[in-house]
Amino acid sequence: MPSNETQAAPRIAVDAMGGDFGPCVVVPAAVEAAREGIDIALVGDEAAINAELSRLDVKGLDIRVVHASQVVEMDDKPSDALRRKKDSSIQVACRLVKKGEADGVVSAGNSGASVACGMFVLGRIKGVLRPALASVMPTEKEPVVLIDVGANVDSKPQHLFQFGLMADVLAKYVLGMKDPSVGLLSIGEEEGKGNAIVREAFDLLRESNLRFIGNVEGRDIFTGDVDIVVCDGFVGNVALKLSEGLAKSMSRILKVELKSSWLSKLGTLLSIRAFRRFKKVVDYAEYGGAPLLGLKGIVIVSHGKSNELAIVNSIRVAATSVRNKVHEHLAEGLAAHSDLFGKAEKNAKTAA
Amino acid sequence: MPSNETQAAPRIAVDAMGGDFGPCVVVPAAVEAAREGIDIALVGDEAAINAELSRLDVKGLDIRVVHASQVVEMDDKPSDALRRKKDSSIQVACRLVKKGEADGVVSAGNSGASVACGMFVLGRIKGVLRPALASVMPTEKEPVVLIDVGANVDSKPQHLFQFGLMADVLAKYVLGMKDPSVGLLSIGEEEGKGNAIVREAFDLLRESNLRFIGNVEGRDIFTGDVDIVVCDGFVGNVALKLSEGLAKSMSRILKVELKSSWLSKLGTLLSIRAFRRFKKVVDYAEYGGAPLLGLKGIVIVSHGKSNELAIVNSIRVAATSVRNKVHEHLAEGLAAHSDLFGKAEKNAKTAA
Repeated sequence: MPSNETQAAPRIAVDAMGGDFGPCVVVPAAVEAAREGIDIALVGDEAAINAELSRLDVKGLDIRVVHASQVVEMDDKPSDALRRKKDSSIQVACRLVKKGEADGVVSAGNSGASVACGMFVLGRIKGVLRPALASVMPTEKEPVVLIDVGANVDSKPQHLFQFGLMADVLAKYVLGMKDPSVGLLSIGEEEGKGNAIVREAFDLLRESNLRFIGNVEGRDIFTGDVDIVVCDGFVGNVALKLSEGLAKSMSRILKVELKSSWLSKLGTLLSIRAFRRFKKVVDYAEYGGAPLLGLKGIVIVSHGKSNELAIVNSIRVAATSVRNKVHEHLAEGLAAHSDLFGKAEKNAKTAA
Repeated sequence: MPSNETQAAPRIAVDAMGGDFGPCVVVPAAVEAAREGIDIALVGDEAAINAELSRLDVKGLDIRVVHASQVVEMDDKPSDALRRKKDSSIQVACRLVKKGEADGVVSAGNSGASVACGMFVLGRIKGVLRPALASVMPTEKEPVVLIDVGANVDSKPQHLFQFGLMADVLAKYVLGMKDPSVGLLSIGEEEGKGNAIVREAFDLLRESNLRFIGNVEGRDIFTGDVDIVVCDGFVGNVALKLSEGLAKSMSRILKVELKSSWLSKLGTLLSIRAFRRFKKVVDYAEYGGAPLLGLKGIVIVSHGKSNELAIVNSIRVAATSVRNKVHEHLAEGLAAHSDLFGKAEKNAKTAA
């Protein structure tokens, strides 16, 4: 883990080439973050980055440009990105953290590649079985943390348990929740419901010192009544993408209906502020990217379609993670439950 | 399978006690269906059913009442419902089909109990490995069939393959789709993405005579670009409940925002017809219940919160399934792919 004095500004390496919009969105976002006192390294094509910077007022800001000659495309396979694009902006950004020249990475690029580079370049915190991607999503009340949303498939019970532990640290030290509740995503609320993996994870979570509230169902994710929802990355990724898709579909259907007559068009005009607030509530950009938890360094995976606000918020999440020493708290959380991991491994061996 | 002449009216046993509202919603719905030429058996507490019937005009309709002394409560365990409530309305309804006195069952009661009673009382069609629950959901275009939404967890590749086959029959012969496309729910569109089970199911689906379009993601479910989405019941149940929950949350958030000022209240008034149409598009009631496919008899599991329209539509789906001989087509579809099942079983044995 890179050293970090309490008073020092967090140093965030930003993948300038990442996302559907690249430098023209990422660079202004990074400059905005620098204005808030975050030390920024913009990683990517030097010429493209400088062209964007020249249009902005960056006097007195802590921004440096680190050249990277390659770019991971959205359709590159993560394994190819790792092996064949060693000088890609995301890999160079991760190496800055590895070398202790930055505390964290933010990328809106190919998320599979960001996860793979994060894992292989930075490595896991001691005791972490599998790093996991946590998505912070809007609800009717406070945001909810869904973990894992795609870093892993075929998770074992002890993995699910660790996802809960890591999300607990994120919720407490980055999102500022006091005593976050943890639910296990299943298909019935009663104990004993769900598949074999979930039933075993239930026992581990119950014995932990997390505020475990038992099984929750798909319908509970967006009510705001649970702070952390734990699931396998396959299920979580389906849930995340389904939510995005459904929210968009509903908005599109509503738009079509509201444009269907003059009367409703007029009505829409009168309600325009309400619709804007509605959009804001259900907008992912407000919450920034998905932290990849469990690595020796902060990695934030932002949505490919991230706008400037989403990137700024991702950088803020990275900076807060550094300031509030998320890594130390993760290590503490893992240490406090080492007996339970031992138990889970013993169970796994007995079953095998 | 109960015999059924082409010209005879479909005979549907309706669980009058099922759902959050019981006879006062189910009985009027059944009467409405009877008016459309469906032969109805109302199963449940005779006195309660007759009290409802006495308020309605049922002259000349084919409705009979079959008494059942017990009711499965929403929080009863399926196994308890099966063993301890042998005279429950859902179990008596299933036995009517078993005895050849009805062709299908519709229940809005405890869905776990309906699935369990359907499976144990009726049994599987020869060749069906695991019956599956198919949910027909609204999209921006045509409805989509999501299968399985909770009858199974820990599905094997050959199960997923059969879910696709059964949904294909449902789409063709009940929903009237000509050449439905089948997608496999995964976490990336490329072949080779997903968990171990999904990767194997991919190969089976590709070799079948279904119109398999490859992997689809959570965001594709509601676009209307795929007709059938195949997944394990754990994932499907999470997806189904999440969709319901998110649609409700979004509607609630929108309602709060639209009531926040006089201007937007007035706007809402002017757009009220558009909102009604929006609600209709995203309303599950329009599509009736979820068919449990693969049993020797039609079983439709309706939502516990079903209103009259939802129950009527469930009965219509059951009747259409009978009229269009869904069972015969299921048996044909299974027979046409028996070589692939053999292959899958051989693979499973080699792996074990």
